[in-house]
Order: sequence, then structure tokens, then C-alpha cells
Amino acid sequence: MSTLQKAVILLSGGLDSATVLAIAKSQGFECYCMSFDYGQRHRAELNAAAAIAAAYGAEHKTILLGLGDIGGSALTDDSIEVPQTHEEGIPVTYVPARNTVFLSLALGWAEVLEAQDIFIGVNAVDYSGYPDCRPEFIDSFTQLANVATKAGVEGHKMRIQTPLIDLSKADIIKTGIELGVDYSATVSCYSANEAGEACGQCDSCRFRRLGFENLGVVDPTRYS
Amino acid sequence: MSTLQKAVILLSGGLDSATVLAIAKSQGFECYCMSFDYGQRHRAELNAAAAIAAAYGAEHKTILLGLGDIGGSALTDDSIEVPQTHEEGIPVTYVPARNTVFLSLALGWAEVLEAQDIFIGVNAVDYSGYPDCRPEFIDSFTQLANVATKAGVEGHKMRIQTPLIDLSKADIIKTGIELGVDYSATVSCYSANEAGEACGQCDSCRFRRLGFENLGVVDPTRYS
Repeated sequence: MSTLQKAVILLSGGLDSATVLAIAKSQGFECYCMSFDYGQRHRAELNAAAAIAAAYGAEHKTILLGLGDIGGSALTDDSIEVPQTHEEGIPVTYVPARNTVFLSLALGWAEVLEAQDIFIGVNAVDYSGYPDCRPEFIDSFTQLANVATKAGVEGHKMRIQTPLIDLSKADIIKTGIELGVDYSATVSCYSANEAGEACGQCDSCRFRRLGFENLGVVDPTRYS
Repeated sequence: MSTLQKAVILLSGGLDSATVLAIAKSQGFECYCMSFDYGQRHRAELNAAAAIAAAYGAEHKTILLGLGDIGGSALTDDSIEVPQTHEEGIPVTYVPARNTVFLSLALGWAEVLEAQDIFIGVNAVDYSGYPDCRPEFIDSFTQLANVATKAGVEGHKMRIQTPLIDLSKADIIKTGIELGVDYSATVSCYSANEAGEACGQCDSCRFRRLGFENLGVVDPTRYS
């Protein structure tokens, strides 16, 4: 790429999105990172996101979002427990329409920045059963992005970039290590404490640990 | 309809969405109204929305949403003036991806409520040039809603209902008056003051006044 193109990166502070940021950066994009303060239990990830963006010299915004007022998920509703064993089907940690909401807000920022690219760390392999992590969801959102926006109407094609979509957790970590991602700075756990220490039991902890084990690399996660 | 079905209504506190609520109610839906505190200049509309929902005995949520942090619109960015004359093309009052974001959040609530219907007061006639008020946008969002959600995946079809989409402002007002809407409770102005008094000059004021004039009915709007 001869001149720097802007991209909006959805950055949660977890392992996947940190890897996505590293990939976008390696492709030569000028990166604008967006996180959401949506009443999640695992707020340590917001501090992680800020630190990761800073390490890449990327602009970072944390957008306030009252998703908790909608309820319906163990991640935002204190009356629903985060399960400590794996559930079949769509789990209670699913936040209703979360990726739709996050991509919509990224789309708004992309319009303001005149960026055509939005990066999101969805993954269809270890995807934990969420409907909004599937390729058909991404295709549908891309179509929407191109009719919803001033940019789309004026003929700039919007792209939703999902570099992790077909990768196993082990492959994601391998890619990240090759790009120099500092995984000790990332927080994956759904129930991480304020110090960013993980529970080791939830789906997110389990997928992460398996990924490192499959790759034969030590996970720098700190457990509580 | 033999049993009450739930619907989520996007209720801004303006003329259009108040009419939409009355239409949904007249069709027998149990209405759940959703408004957004997104840093808009015209915050009087939030008080109007709460009062309108209460008048219809509908549940009402105001969701906090940091759209202002994204910038790019005269409605959320104090450094951009709300124009007092009509502009051609997409105007500076366009909030990037606003309806995409609002519908996404309505979709999240609809999932939690197990509602299949979302009502939005978009209008393709007097639509002020916003790309996300066009029928092709609504069609695209409907497709997205059915791949993005647990409900869609499990086979409940989601519907985005746009009862105003082909109506002129005068027809909207006529419909509302027939349904008993109290338009004195609605606030349309982009620059309304805290008392809910309108400027009389912005696009939104202009469309509203023309609508009442074309219908030959007195507009109960209070001007500052």
C-alpha cells in the first residue's frame, strides 16, 4: 500500500482482537481502535484494550453503550451466572445482537474517518455458538454497510475484514506470535477480576488455554 | 390478533415515531419503546419520548449511547452548526450510521423480549436525504436481522415495520390525528431548547410545518 489507508479495528482487549490489530497494522493500515464500555462484567478488558492500542500507537476510543439495560446475557446481567462448564447451542454469555451493534458503531466512525475497512476478530471455528460470528452474518453486514452509509451511496465500497474467521485458536496465536503480539497484555476471561486475572473455567478461558496447548506454547495468562 | 404480540418501537419523541407508536398500538401490539441518549443537541425530545410512551401505557427504555464521541454530525458535534436553510444532498445533520445503530439495539431488545417486530418511523418521501431512511436500507437490515440473531437462526422471522415509509408528512399527521396522537407532546426541532420550544428554521421544523400546512391543520408546536 503506497499511502496509509485508515481502518477501524474493533478491539476488545482479548487475544483475538489484539491479533487482528497486529494483522491490520502489518498490512499497512493506519489503525483506529474502538472499544465499548457496555456494562460487561469483565471490565479489565477495557484497560487491556487501551494499553494494546497505545502499544501500537493507534488512536483509541471507548464508546459508552447501555447494552446492560437490555439484559438477557450473563455478560451484562448480574442475575445470570457465567457458566463454568461448556453448554451446547447458543450459550447464556451471548449478548443479544452484540456484533451487529459493535459493527454499526464502527461503521459510523468509519464514515467520519472516510475509512473503507473495518476489522473484527470473529471466528467461525472456536466461535462459542454465537450467531453473529458466522460468515453469513459478515456477508450480510457488508451488504448493509454499503446501502446504509453516505460512503456506500457515493460508491466507496465498505469492507468488513475478518482475518481470523477460518483460523483455529492455535493458528490465531501462532499468527500473533509471528507478528510480535504481547499476549500477556490481553484479557480473555468473561469473569476476569479488576487486576485482569482469569477464572480459568469459562468458555473463553477454555478456548484460550486449548489454543496455547495445541500450539505447544506457554500462555502468559495470570489466573486468580 | 388473538394474543398480544410484542413489538419494539423506536421512539425519538418526534412527530413520526409518535405516529408509529399509535399505529403499532392500533394493530394490537404490546409496545416496548426505546429511545437513545446519544448526546443529541435536542434533548427535549427525550422528555417528550418518555411522556408519549407513558401516555400509551408502554414500557420505555432510554439507552445511553456515546454517538457524540464519534462526531461528524451537526446533531451531536457542537463545532458543526445546524443549518437554517435547506441543503442539497446528504446534510450535515446526518448522524453517521444512526439508524443502523438504533435498529441494532432494538434488535438486541427484541431478542430478549422474543419480539419479532421492530417499528421505525423512517420515511422515504420527506426523508431529508439520509441514506439510512431508504427502503433498500430497511430490506438489507431485515436480511441481517435474520442471520444475526438467535431468533433468526431458530426460525422466527424478524420484521422491520416501516408504516410511514411511503407517506407524505401531511399523510403521517392525518393518520396520527385519526388515531388520536397528541402532537403537542412531540418535539421535532433539531435545536429545540430545554422547554421543548422549536427554532422554526431547521429542516425538521420546515418539513413539519409544511406537513401541517398541506393538511390545513394547526400545528401545536411551540416556537422559541
